[in-house]
Amino acid sequence: MDVEEFRAAAHELVDWIADLRLRVPELPVRSTARPGEVRAAVDGVPPELPEPFAALLADLDDVVVPGTTQVQSPRNFAWFPSNASLASVLGDLASSGLGSLGITWQSSPALTELEEVVTDWLRDLTGLSSQWRGAIHDTASSACLVAMIAARERASGLSEARGGLQSEPAPLVVYASTEAHSSVAKAVLLAGFGRDNLRLVPADPVTFAMDVDALRDLMARDVAAGRRPAAVVASVGTTGTTAVDPVAEIVSAASVHGAWVHVDAAMAGSAMLLEECRGMFDGVECADSLSWNPHKWMGTILDCSLLYVRDVELLVRVMSTDPSYLRSSVDGEVTQYKDWGIPLGRRFRALKLWFHLRLDGAEAIRARLRRDLANAQWLRAQVDAEPGWEVVAPVPLQTVCVVHAPAGLTGDALDAHTLAWCERINASGRALLTPALVGGRWVVRVSIGAEATEHDDVSAVWKLMRDTAQRRP
Amino acid sequence: MDVEEFRAAAHELVDWIADLRLRVPELPVRSTARPGEVRAAVDGVPPELPEPFAALLADLDDVVVPGTTQVQSPRNFAWFPSNASLASVLGDLASSGLGSLGITWQSSPALTELEEVVTDWLRDLTGLSSQWRGAIHDTASSACLVAMIAARERASGLSEARGGLQSEPAPLVVYASTEAHSSVAKAVLLAGFGRDNLRLVPADPVTFAMDVDALRDLMARDVAAGRRPAAVVASVGTTGTTAVDPVAEIVSAASVHGAWVHVDAAMAGSAMLLEECRGMFDGVECADSLSWNPHKWMGTILDCSLLYVRDVELLVRVMSTDPSYLRSSVDGEVTQYKDWGIPLGRRFRALKLWFHLRLDGAEAIRARLRRDLANAQWLRAQVDAEPGWEVVAPVPLQTVCVVHAPAGLTGDALDAHTLAWCERINASGRALLTPALVGGRWVVRVSIGAEATEHDDVSAVWKLMRDTAQRRP
Repeated sequence: MDVEEFRAAAHELVDWIADLRLRVPELPVRSTARPGEVRAAVDGVPPELPEPFAALLADLDDVVVPGTTQVQSPRNFAWFPSNASLASVLGDLASSGLGSLGITWQSSPALTELEEVVTDWLRDLTGLSSQWRGAIHDTASSACLVAMIAARERASGLSEARGGLQSEPAPLVVYASTEAHSSVAKAVLLAGFGRDNLRLVPADPVTFAMDVDALRDLMARDVAAGRRPAAVVASVGTTGTTAVDPVAEIVSAASVHGAWVHVDAAMAGSAMLLEECRGMFDGVECADSLSWNPHKWMGTILDCSLLYVRDVELLVRVMSTDPSYLRSSVDGEVTQYKDWGIPLGRRFRALKLWFHLRLDGAEAIRARLRRDLANAQWLRAQVDAEPGWEVVAPVPLQTVCVVHAPAGLTGDALDAHTLAWCERINASGRALLTPALVGGRWVVRVSIGAEATEHDDVSAVWKLMRDTAQRRP
Repeated sequence: MDVEEFRAAAHELVDWIADLRLRVPELPVRSTARPGEVRAAVDGVPPELPEPFAALLADLDDVVVPGTTQVQSPRNFAWFPSNASLASVLGDLASSGLGSLGITWQSSPALTELEEVVTDWLRDLTGLSSQWRGAIHDTASSACLVAMIAARERASGLSEARGGLQSEPAPLVVYASTEAHSSVAKAVLLAGFGRDNLRLVPADPVTFAMDVDALRDLMARDVAAGRRPAAVVASVGTTGTTAVDPVAEIVSAASVHGAWVHVDAAMAGSAMLLEECRGMFDGVECADSLSWNPHKWMGTILDCSLLYVRDVELLVRVMSTDPSYLRSSVDGEVTQYKDWGIPLGRRFRALKLWFHLRLDGAEAIRARLRRDLANAQWLRAQVDAEPGWEVVAPVPLQTVCVVHAPAGLTGDALDAHTLAWCERINASGRALLTPALVGGRWVVRVSIGAEATEHDDVSAVWKLMRDTAQRRP
């Protein structure tokens, strides 16, 4: 494909993308594809000869769009928001168009230094102090793995430089609440700690926040048994209910044992943009690492997860490599992000944050987040006031967890009812909600915050929920 | 930014991207930015209010392009090719435009099933058997880390489900050649094995391929000392010289101890597209994992690294999570790529491979790779025939490693001469070459294979090398 063929096709594609955004509100939110259906539609022998661009565009329309769950829909309330603000999409296009290679500073000084600028901007916009430095990772899963490895190495006095984790006599233990995201346990296992050394600390049955007394007890018991607390993961905004672990108390409990504190605020980090929400993060300045995803609520297109650390020097000691073919004369003067995370090669992700912040402006982003908080409080109040309905967890952010419990319905029958009405809504394509287990029973999460979701959409889904749950199937 | 603002800006951006591609051959290959220069040009307080798109475009021109090393230049011979074929750029634009969320099959069936299709296509195009299944990762660094963790878990009988690596009494050992990429050692350290349990196996002083007799000896010695060989990394196409470790012999040596064999073919994997190059991979069908990067020589824009495994069931056992909020009724029938790697959230990367293969066709890609192999052999012959010049390693692929050694120049003085003439070329902006330590001395790698590089460009760089190295500075 030569440049002029590219130019013509890309103009067509831009119109296709813009038109798709206009069509999204009319599309079923959940993909209607059956397992194997997409594959069957496009499989076959690998293409030997060029196909016309029109064939690709047709497949996007006929196969890819119907095979895609429309998370940009105003009626998407599933999982957490996964916004792709158009300003950030533009930045992503620029990144693809530039075709940069991020391996060292020298391979693209702009890629490195813009990443410093935007991570510092977001540090300042979220009220963090200048002791933090950040980098862009793909996801909070990877960021948490990096944090767990850094914690492991700090606790073991850089065992990776010697005999590794096996050379550590005392078992190293990691603590997280029962409500922590699945990626936390995954990171602990991948880092080699082992499930026996992962303590799931009980959460408060009402707030679902970590019980710090229980944390202290567990740590003391481990120490008494000859084990060493290496890390605590504090979740701010859990996936189930957006519960907020008390970071200040956790930091204080962890400090007794010198344990690393990682704050996982994948979803809730966006709330730090709002001064009135920063109380949820009290104590964060004394944590060791913090990750949050602009690619969720804030709306910079996936993948864009930030990991901030206070001790960059330690991180770099744990992650660095210095082969001859990557050296240059300026190495001492510049940031080498390859030594801040797992991958060597990196895309120019800073552009999407740069475009997003500059083309939309922080003020508009904050206004949108406040709109969502208000919509969540409105929905919470509606559910609270409605007979037979219950809000099952506090609503500190934009997610409302509900059950519809008609008189007499309990236990497994109630769970079956919950899953059934949720699935009827999802199957209708008119909205998308995620069921989740909260405190041992199935609830429905209404996670407000798709960029396109206005009050009317929240009002409409609440009507849909009542109509669906209260109607016999 | 609303849809029509996006449409207008994106059309402008497409023209800007196409025009940039036309300009690239005239730009200095290496960025002329000094450390801190980009940052100083764009820093300041975070933007509160929207800026016009024109301001962004101007900064792309004035700051980002000069701050970018032009790896798409026809005169880029640095590192390894990092091609961003325009067909794949289009696919990347489509991915950004769709704004899909890849967390589970349900969140985007098309994202999952197209990834199955394109990884199977590339498996078939590279002559691998149907026992392999692949997934797209960001980089070979991450793919290697996944492989090392899988190897650790196989060797330890899934210790992650118990007391972790610390509960394994016998130290687990990993082997790789002294020429293996830095990401291999990094993966071994991050996976917790420890540097004492990483054996750098000597390479043949002429071919730079792993000495398998030495591997066997090291393994036997470790076993005798009560340690257990857990994994061997075979490098096909090392970064220094594109040396080829003998995979069949390595597999045979490893099988005695039940060690996992990971084949790191980040660069050379593209050569498997050519039947005449497949001999380099003899034995790969008995390895456990194989990674290679279409985002290098083949030219699907970064980030696009493939990891193929034979035992998907084991991989999934090691990597899987199953929280309630990610479950759906079709889980048993579909592929959940979250359980094949580290991140939960994934971009729609299959689109760039799908667009690249369909819009260019495999035949044209193979023709381009053959062009580069021929250019490398031409350059090798020229250097061989030129007095004072030397080709320092075999040229099985597209990288030619050379020194210019005028009579009497040896040791440190020769190294200084090599680094000096290479730097003079790089500083001129007329071409970009990477120096590297090979067999203890500095050489200059001429890595042919930028998509735009034709025979005339190779001829020109060879003239530039002679003119520069043979001239007094």
